[in-house]
Amino acid sequence: MKFKNKAVFFAALFTCTISIAQTHKSLEDFKPSSVNQPGKAFPQVNSEGRVRASILATDAKKVQLDIGGVKYDMVKDDKGVWTGESAPQDEGFHYYQLNIDGASVPDPGTKYFYGAGRWGSGIEIPAVDQDFYALKDVPHGLVSENIYFSKITNSFRRCFVYTPAGYEKDAKTRYPVLYLQHGSFEDETGWPTQGNANLILDNLIAAQKAVPMIIVMDNGYAYKPQTGESAGRPVSVFEEVVIQEIIPMIDAKFRTIADREHRAIAGLSMGANQTMRIIMNNLDKFASYGGFSGTSNYPSSAEIEPITFLDGKFNDGAAFNKQIKVFWLGLGTKEPNPFPGSVGAFRKMLEKQGIKYVYYESPGTAHEWLTWRRSLNQYAQLLFK
Amino acid sequence: MKFKNKAVFFAALFTCTISIAQTHKSLEDFKPSSVNQPGKAFPQVNSEGRVRASILATDAKKVQLDIGGVKYDMVKDDKGVWTGESAPQDEGFHYYQLNIDGASVPDPGTKYFYGAGRWGSGIEIPAVDQDFYALKDVPHGLVSENIYFSKITNSFRRCFVYTPAGYEKDAKTRYPVLYLQHGSFEDETGWPTQGNANLILDNLIAAQKAVPMIIVMDNGYAYKPQTGESAGRPVSVFEEVVIQEIIPMIDAKFRTIADREHRAIAGLSMGANQTMRIIMNNLDKFASYGGFSGTSNYPSSAEIEPITFLDGKFNDGAAFNKQIKVFWLGLGTKEPNPFPGSVGAFRKMLEKQGIKYVYYESPGTAHEWLTWRRSLNQYAQLLFK
Repeated sequence: MKFKNKAVFFAALFTCTISIAQTHKSLEDFKPSSVNQPGKAFPQVNSEGRVRASILATDAKKVQLDIGGVKYDMVKDDKGVWTGESAPQDEGFHYYQLNIDGASVPDPGTKYFYGAGRWGSGIEIPAVDQDFYALKDVPHGLVSENIYFSKITNSFRRCFVYTPAGYEKDAKTRYPVLYLQHGSFEDETGWPTQGNANLILDNLIAAQKAVPMIIVMDNGYAYKPQTGESAGRPVSVFEEVVIQEIIPMIDAKFRTIADREHRAIAGLSMGANQTMRIIMNNLDKFASYGGFSGTSNYPSSAEIEPITFLDGKFNDGAAFNKQIKVFWLGLGTKEPNPFPGSVGAFRKMLEKQGIKYVYYESPGTAHEWLTWRRSLNQYAQLLFK
Repeated sequence: MKFKNKAVFFAALFTCTISIAQTHKSLEDFKPSSVNQPGKAFPQVNSEGRVRASILATDAKKVQLDIGGVKYDMVKDDKGVWTGESAPQDEGFHYYQLNIDGASVPDPGTKYFYGAGRWGSGIEIPAVDQDFYALKDVPHGLVSENIYFSKITNSFRRCFVYTPAGYEKDAKTRYPVLYLQHGSFEDETGWPTQGNANLILDNLIAAQKAVPMIIVMDNGYAYKPQTGESAGRPVSVFEEVVIQEIIPMIDAKFRTIADREHRAIAGLSMGANQTMRIIMNNLDKFASYGGFSGTSNYPSSAEIEPITFLDGKFNDGAAFNKQIKVFWLGLGTKEPNPFPGSVGAFRKMLEKQGIKYVYYESPGTAHEWLTWRRSLNQYAQLLFK
């Protein structure tokens, strides 16, 4: 199973950390992070993108700031307050934690976000283009928590649904829908929280750069119920849940335009992989696709055989171009392997088949949320036009 | 200022803790708490209501579980895992934290909740009547995050809006509205998260015990913007925000019945105090009130003079009874002072004035969320009938 392999890969990524003592001299223009808890002075970020954390731990022997795969030693003052700084971080949003005498814990100064398989601390390094996802005085859409019972998984599930500003006022207007998925070890809270999907669309729609649309953000982990006898490897049924449960529910509950031309699907990383399979298996349901830092040949960078890849769905380039309205791929310039390799191999295949697509590179960002915020910002402008 | 006094009172409540070493023998029927992060085995709760926490902290000297104002010493095993238990806790939801060598941090096993002035850990002790706030296979309403810019405070604010199941389907039906407020050191996330307000109403409406209604949950902290010259004590303008900004916004954005008979207001603790003032100052806007563990004479238990109290609004009992549809007070039987004293003095005044009201006691609960979930469950059944 793909997810199992990814679990191992990411676990390695997150635990392969080294310990670094501070030797640099930081610029003293630190400010509290924009995602701190109300009234909390720490953590802070300076103009170099360094993170400064601080915590009272009177009796601790060793306290570290653990961010970006590196553990930075913090230093204790005479009041028992430990303070320390990271090397400059990439612009955008990062997950991190503190380590106190061997205990990995969230920093009590930040709000909490679900990523890396846990609810934990996050920090925002101001980006040069942060205006596009900023909270501004424009009309704001609603983000609604929608709980439902899934018969396929025999469990309660949840999606968040963005409805654009004005949705409530005019009871007749119907809207196109973007189904937007998170990555591995994340959940349905990713896009409406650290993804800022609602603010990105509020700003685009206010500037008339994007068509008003509904966005559905569900959880990409969905498994067949296990009975006593069948217990074993969990079998993903996310595609079935999307097609048989989520889409009919959204079309019944919200004022959608319920045809393929007015339905798009996109995802990041694992979500890009999943949603590419979903659109290719269900071309009667979707006409546009966005793959943010991911493709369905992940993690391979080997040449793709269009006759066999995804049941030959990319084999007839001319037919593909007729059916698909927007086929969009994005990647950060600093993404680690295997992402550039597998996305690169996928693009080569598209080009060989004469398939039209849009390719976007996010400058200076890795496999992180600023890449995906920018991807959504670019992709959403092309949809339903 | 009232809030300042409360701040001191609550700070005292939360920091006055004692250290307790384990000597008891617990029943070994511990199960993971229902509000743990996905896949996390700890914290756990047993049938006595004891909380068992566990955390890896290989190099720590002292780790404690800090719950209900008491710090319980945890014990280290040979792998560096610390485990410890609390005394039995009251049924319902409690905030708590861990203490690792002097650092107070959230438990990485739980989801996080805003209370006690921070985002931190919470735990759920199963209650005898937990069915009324359980997630069940009934039609579910939506909880929508609504961001708005407040001119009065010159800041972005947020409310959560519950719309009952079926709201989206029939574009003509209009609904009554309950404005529902959190307590001190909490925020607008309290009722839709640890309060389970949406699930309580979903279940009541499905059982036809409550009228379908909209619920608006905003943030009770709202202050006049401070200029350089006026900087000093913050001045609360929450009442102005409710009357001049929130109500017009909700009536414009949602399909409400926009008259006083179809508008109710309620709150818990600080919110009970605030909302009583708001309804009494705005009887043209609201016809029903719910005070959960709080009244506007807080924290005094002295006899109330109806001629002067809240500008004499309770002085004419007969007129009061004509104007108010539901006047409702609730309190937990285990609430600490000053709550029983101030609510008791308030009830005496009501009785002296011949004012009709409903009084509810939540058995075996203190100044905590089970008292308030039960209060909402009782109060909502009486509204708009």
